[in-house]
Amino acid sequence: MLPRGRPRALGAAALLLLLLLLGFLLFGGDLGCERRELGGRAGAPGCFPGQLMPRVPPDWRLRGAAALDGDPLAGPRDRNPSDCGPQPPLPPKCELLHVAIVCAGHNSSRDVITLVKSMLFYRKNPLHLHLVTDAVARNILEMLFHTWMVPAVRVSFYNADELKPQVSWIPNKHYSGLYGLMKLVLPSTLPAELARVIVLDTDITFASDIAELWALFAHFSDMQAIGLVENQSDWYLGNLWKNHRPWPALGRGFNTGVILLRLDRLRHAGWEQMWRLTARQELLTLPATSLADQDIFNAVIKEHPGLVQPLPCVWNVQLSDHTLAERCYSEASDLKVIHWNSPKKLRVKNKHVEFFRNFYLTFLAYDGNLLRRGLFGCPSQPPSGAEQLQQALAQLDEEDPCFEFRQQQLTVHRVHITFLPHEPPPSRPHDVTLVAQLSMDRLQMLEALCRHWPGPMSLALYLTDAEAQQFLRFVEASPVLAARQDVAYHVVYREGPLYPVNQLRNVALAQALTPYVFLSDIDFLPAYSLYDYLRASIEQLGLGSRRKAALVVPAFETLHYRFSFPRSKVELLALLDAGALYTFRYHEWPRGHAPTDYARWREAQAPYSVQWVADYEPYVVVPRDCPRYDPRFVGFGWNKVAHIMELDAQEFEFLVLPEAFTIHLPHAPSLDISHFRSSPTYRGCLQALKDEFHQDLSRHYGAAALKYLPALQQPWSPARGS
Amino acid sequence: MLPRGRPRALGAAALLLLLLLLGFLLFGGDLGCERRELGGRAGAPGCFPGQLMPRVPPDWRLRGAAALDGDPLAGPRDRNPSDCGPQPPLPPKCELLHVAIVCAGHNSSRDVITLVKSMLFYRKNPLHLHLVTDAVARNILEMLFHTWMVPAVRVSFYNADELKPQVSWIPNKHYSGLYGLMKLVLPSTLPAELARVIVLDTDITFASDIAELWALFAHFSDMQAIGLVENQSDWYLGNLWKNHRPWPALGRGFNTGVILLRLDRLRHAGWEQMWRLTARQELLTLPATSLADQDIFNAVIKEHPGLVQPLPCVWNVQLSDHTLAERCYSEASDLKVIHWNSPKKLRVKNKHVEFFRNFYLTFLAYDGNLLRRGLFGCPSQPPSGAEQLQQALAQLDEEDPCFEFRQQQLTVHRVHITFLPHEPPPSRPHDVTLVAQLSMDRLQMLEALCRHWPGPMSLALYLTDAEAQQFLRFVEASPVLAARQDVAYHVVYREGPLYPVNQLRNVALAQALTPYVFLSDIDFLPAYSLYDYLRASIEQLGLGSRRKAALVVPAFETLHYRFSFPRSKVELLALLDAGALYTFRYHEWPRGHAPTDYARWREAQAPYSVQWVADYEPYVVVPRDCPRYDPRFVGFGWNKVAHIMELDAQEFEFLVLPEAFTIHLPHAPSLDISHFRSSPTYRGCLQALKDEFHQDLSRHYGAAALKYLPALQQPWSPARGS
Repeated sequence: MLPRGRPRALGAAALLLLLLLLGFLLFGGDLGCERRELGGRAGAPGCFPGQLMPRVPPDWRLRGAAALDGDPLAGPRDRNPSDCGPQPPLPPKCELLHVAIVCAGHNSSRDVITLVKSMLFYRKNPLHLHLVTDAVARNILEMLFHTWMVPAVRVSFYNADELKPQVSWIPNKHYSGLYGLMKLVLPSTLPAELARVIVLDTDITFASDIAELWALFAHFSDMQAIGLVENQSDWYLGNLWKNHRPWPALGRGFNTGVILLRLDRLRHAGWEQMWRLTARQELLTLPATSLADQDIFNAVIKEHPGLVQPLPCVWNVQLSDHTLAERCYSEASDLKVIHWNSPKKLRVKNKHVEFFRNFYLTFLAYDGNLLRRGLFGCPSQPPSGAEQLQQALAQLDEEDPCFEFRQQQLTVHRVHITFLPHEPPPSRPHDVTLVAQLSMDRLQMLEALCRHWPGPMSLALYLTDAEAQQFLRFVEASPVLAARQDVAYHVVYREGPLYPVNQLRNVALAQALTPYVFLSDIDFLPAYSLYDYLRASIEQLGLGSRRKAALVVPAFETLHYRFSFPRSKVELLALLDAGALYTFRYHEWPRGHAPTDYARWREAQAPYSVQWVADYEPYVVVPRDCPRYDPRFVGFGWNKVAHIMELDAQEFEFLVLPEAFTIHLPHAPSLDISHFRSSPTYRGCLQALKDEFHQDLSRHYGAAALKYLPALQQPWSPARGS
Repeated sequence: MLPRGRPRALGAAALLLLLLLLGFLLFGGDLGCERRELGGRAGAPGCFPGQLMPRVPPDWRLRGAAALDGDPLAGPRDRNPSDCGPQPPLPPKCELLHVAIVCAGHNSSRDVITLVKSMLFYRKNPLHLHLVTDAVARNILEMLFHTWMVPAVRVSFYNADELKPQVSWIPNKHYSGLYGLMKLVLPSTLPAELARVIVLDTDITFASDIAELWALFAHFSDMQAIGLVENQSDWYLGNLWKNHRPWPALGRGFNTGVILLRLDRLRHAGWEQMWRLTARQELLTLPATSLADQDIFNAVIKEHPGLVQPLPCVWNVQLSDHTLAERCYSEASDLKVIHWNSPKKLRVKNKHVEFFRNFYLTFLAYDGNLLRRGLFGCPSQPPSGAEQLQQALAQLDEEDPCFEFRQQQLTVHRVHITFLPHEPPPSRPHDVTLVAQLSMDRLQMLEALCRHWPGPMSLALYLTDAEAQQFLRFVEASPVLAARQDVAYHVVYREGPLYPVNQLRNVALAQALTPYVFLSDIDFLPAYSLYDYLRASIEQLGLGSRRKAALVVPAFETLHYRFSFPRSKVELLALLDAGALYTFRYHEWPRGHAPTDYARWREAQAPYSVQWVADYEPYVVVPRDCPRYDPRFVGFGWNKVAHIMELDAQEFEFLVLPEAFTIHLPHAPSLDISHFRSSPTYRGCLQALKDEFHQDLSRHYGAAALKYLPALQQPWSPARGS
């Protein structure tokens, strides 16, 4: 029987060998790597070892460090992290990914938006952002995300001020201040049911899908709770300069700009006690943290090395001052995340910085509106208001000649309030904020305006994302503008063909923080004394408590760019008499300001009351809670007239101030006004908007609104000025 | 022995079973897919079968088609193409990928740039673009790529006009015209040593790395030569309407917007004969091709099904009028390539079109300068001129107060000549092109300019990529501008903080195609008669052959936006006397035009000669080959003065024309002029530039240049106008 048995056994063994051989051929002899991709866990040989440093394959660390430094931990150079690492299995198509970011102040709020844009550009999963913010950042980001309306993105806010006591006892020298340290308390701050989160610094830019990063959670061993990339500088080796004493770390330590946190395991492991204990111990001999939370994370990891899962270097390419990142990126085929962790940020010196800067600038200038795209096949609750908006847009008739007007009125613009650092004015009962709106072509007015108006201003700027950056550089380069903390700039992002003038005015108006507002236009320069004079007048006239009034600031115009701005009413009248100044729109449209009664103003010594007349559109000072501008008026025409009409309907008294004046500077006609003049369709649409406005007025004010009917029915001449 | 033998055999069999089971568990029972990733070839069961349709797994075709249509070819729905497809092994890090595109005319040239931008954004490999172009596209794209200077991109051009005879015999009804058919002759047109190429239509947008597409070549069987995605409409089923008779195809047929071509195999298989034979045969019964090359490719494939390798649907998501693409994209986790293959392009009706449009708009508006990033670790020959440029930039001192000026002068701007369709003017010996430059804030001048100047114009526009699209829409919306085919618009892409005024002028000047040019500025409107008058004057004065002259067009200005433009010199003089017009810069800087001698001009009946004097900057008509503007003058100041000085140095006679005039319209001061006025540094830098200009002038003209020294040494007053 042996002969029969043996061949069978031999046959089976041969088949087995063959299979093994086949397996070897098919999987390149690197089953470990393949297995990793399929979810290899603790102890499995492969790319994600279950234990710390001494077993970390060098592939996951600084490339080439071995060859350069003789690092005893390093292995052969011929294994590229990108050969092994770049294609972990992605999370299921619609899995919700959680991201936590600490963000405080105006500048970090701008940074975080660039980070979020890069993340949204590549993402294919629904995201839940957990934002730990101070009051400033919350105010900005709440409005931003509300108006951004990105599908499949949820945002939760956590109050950073409440967390301060938990970390303020730690002396800290890092530029991120107290807020950096707050990453330590995320396990107790984020909802108890949240098990995993990716934690990001605000100076991070994604160059790939965040789902690939999330997928690395699958490689944590049962004990591992913190995924980190090695620190790409020699900081923790303590040899950067003489007497440099860094906090303790394993080897080069880890960088905490990108963290994968298993919150559940950290809570279970007593993280809250653990890091506090370590920090207190180290602070017995070290004066302060140098790198904020990162020092403490590293010290804890040195004590509990089992907690950490090292991540591939491409997930946190660190462009710090002493960066060794080139060893990582020069051999990787694919960069995933760029980290601007130098205090110099984009101005860091690095021979490849231009490359990385281009990447960053991509998202800095990227039109965020384009990220409003949904995810195919992932049902998600639409952003608040998005469904009604979709329905309203769907009901529009594309063949309607006024389609563009209707569409523009419905457009929800992304709004970034207080785009630049801003100090709210102290609370003063008669204070006045100048309110205006502008686009890029009026930036050159800002310096002059600042010289003429020393008080608070609230300005809405209609810009693309790229223009917002130009604007930022413009302000930084101007000593006059950079010195003013009381000017609030609110960026409203461009979308659609028509200028949404009244929506812009409403944004600026809503952000004014004083009891009164001066509703101006950007091409006017007020009298140097106007700010003080208005406050004094408001007090003297007893506005608010006793009188419901709109204070009229008489308007003039010059036809010359450069002229000697009058220092007083006397000087102004002299220029007027000399023909160097005119009353506003004297040549084109005197009706707009005639009711101000310039002849009476010449002689007036005290405020005088004037009556509303059709087409009246003076510049006025009113309480902050005045009626909003009607947002249906987009492009050119009727935007101020309708507002003044509504003030009259609400029985505001128009009081002309005898010493107040403001002067219009010349500029080329806007595209909108050119369009209005040349297009009968444009004028027809404006008439339709006026009709609808009057219907609403009648609905609101009843028979009293009949008074405005003749004014609304009279068509405007194309010759009319703006 | 049996007992000994059997247990062994049994043991081996058990081990075998265990191994099989293990393999099943590890690889999800889908060894085929895994094998495919490792390069499975002909006949291997898996995702890339070696044979045609009946064995194509449904995963690679329209998703869900089976369930929807009862397609007998379809399999179960639970296999997602993206589960199987998204991670083929990428080509080696620095492998050169070849791409061929047929492109003709102005509009396709714009399209192809958007395609290339999307490709460059995601690419990580060096690319060689093979562009089959007509003369117009070649002219545009050669200049574009030359000035774009993208590292690791090579471009070769092939003359489409030479290929026309090879395909012009085929009757064709498709909107792509003859050019679409040229894809058929690529195997004989591209270099014989080129074995593989990806062929793309111009209406393609990439949403992923083209290397992933290139990787699919690895799955071709030995006989396969053409990789294609199934056509995502029912067109070839012939049931779209009554009596619809499409060309023959296998099932739904294939779409040729994205093709992987094994050129070597096609040449070997006698492709040239093959497609001609098939086309001739079909044309015996069919009147013409409806879908150009695609009909012929499909007919050939129907006859030779072994040639085709079907590709996953995500590599050509077709948004045609009758698209079924939703079946593909709604279940895929990842879209790779979007194809706008409706004649309606972005206006195609589709409930998800907004999503795709946002993707497209991303690259339409993308700042192409940001794509000038190199590839890490892939040595490649730098683009022509790039090395010298890098060296020059590296030698600049960032601390130099004039650093921004120096950097701006060295900047090579991307240039897109004839951005819109343009008819070159017929060759006429005395014809004149108006040459000017502008940025976005002067667009509203264009219509008026067209009304005043009925002749050819060459205009350089300084725009961002996003603004170039706004400009396009602006022209399309203007009947006046859209009607003019003799106005050439050249887009120079913005880069850097200072306006490169003279570089812009030089671009416009270089593209003027008539023997004479009128060097104007955008805020001037010429007399209605000027174009005719100049041509007559050039002829009468015998310029060129007999006299080397610069004809001076006297300049005036109005301070009002709207005024009645004088129809004659008599009317102009009346307005001048009435104070409604002034000589140009009368108030701010009369020296700039004083040498024109306005008093003499009033009375002049014939052209008169005037002498050059310091600061003279008239608007002149000169031969096209006049000296270029000095590109060192960026921002505000000295840009025209230096040019006129050089004309004088070259002994041009300044001849004032008695009936010529041009009038400047008012506008707000530019940011550059405001900067010049407020910044002593700015003025200091301008003086430094002037000194260097004079050194060059001396080098060129020797002692004769001494004449200009006093003019160059005198500092400019900040009050000076532009």
